[in-house]
Amino acid sequence: MPKVKTLEDLFQAGLKDIFFAEKKILTALPKMAKAAINQDLRAAFEKHVAETEEQVSRLEQVFEEIEAKPQSKTCDAIMGIIAEGQEIMKDYKGSPALDNGLLASAQAVEHYEICQYGTLISWANELGLKESVRLLRQTLAEEEKTDKSLTALAEAVVNQEACSEPAGIESEEET
Amino acid sequence: MPKVKTLEDLFQAGLKDIFFAEKKILTALPKMAKAAINQDLRAAFEKHVAETEEQVSRLEQVFEEIEAKPQSKTCDAIMGIIAEGQEIMKDYKGSPALDNGLLASAQAVEHYEICQYGTLISWANELGLKESVRLLRQTLAEEEKTDKSLTALAEAVVNQEACSEPAGIESEEET
Repeated sequence: MPKVKTLEDLFQAGLKDIFFAEKKILTALPKMAKAAINQDLRAAFEKHVAETEEQVSRLEQVFEEIEAKPQSKTCDAIMGIIAEGQEIMKDYKGSPALDNGLLASAQAVEHYEICQYGTLISWANELGLKESVRLLRQTLAEEEKTDKSLTALAEAVVNQEACSEPAGIESEEET
Repeated sequence: MPKVKTLEDLFQAGLKDIFFAEKKILTALPKMAKAAINQDLRAAFEKHVAETEEQVSRLEQVFEEIEAKPQSKTCDAIMGIIAEGQEIMKDYKGSPALDNGLLASAQAVEHYEICQYGTLISWANELGLKESVRLLRQTLAEEEKTDKSLTALAEAVVNQEACSEPAGIESEEET
């Protein structure tokens, strides 16, 4: 009879999932930085590479606290989110709306991470994993900060770059 | 030479993506409700079916404002998120941690939607689509409310159901 799975199993599975996701993000970010038109957006992606490396290292420390070897498990969610980002890079190459698409894609990544870290913190807390809670909270705070700065950038970019008058839409700007 | 893509194209693509996602979620929710152990969680999933139907109908009205036929475009992100949820339902069947997994999966769905609606609102605003902004904001408010109620449920469920003492982890409960 198979062993009944516990919250600890779920925590460990979630950890492997986000470990995979962070490493996948590490390979996607330089491509997004290279594609970005706006210099501030490029700089934001480049800065996030260093942060992500640190986040991977924190996850390794969490694996240590539960006495497990750091392992990845394919995360279908992040694969899907990143695939959509790659499609945007291809479809909007040379378009002023490319940065808007890149920003949307980066924010989808951040929201996925924010959600996963929130869940892992709640489970780590329940499991009494004090050091893991501390480490995961540090990363969550960084992801939330990144998401906020992407929102600010998105507002700037949408106003500066993508304002070609769309066809078939009556402009109803508020005055 | 292909037409240069604009913010309007991006908005329409995003709309097709979330239209697909909402309809996919409509097929996933009843399975999640059926699997849930906790009655409040089951009720929350069932309530969200009706809300999601309303959200699909709002998206149809947004398509109307941009004079486009409501269409879906495969959303790899939601496919990945839902696939992970299905894996949890299979792996944790009969386990007290099943509800925790279901909740994590449902929150990943909500966060994806919150992010996408936030982006669509910002673009609709820029494109002067007043009615779309109003409709999308209504849905965003619902998704945020759902996410908050799932967080509250997650805290209740983690305390009630999944508290089997994990092996290999020193309990360090705060007193």
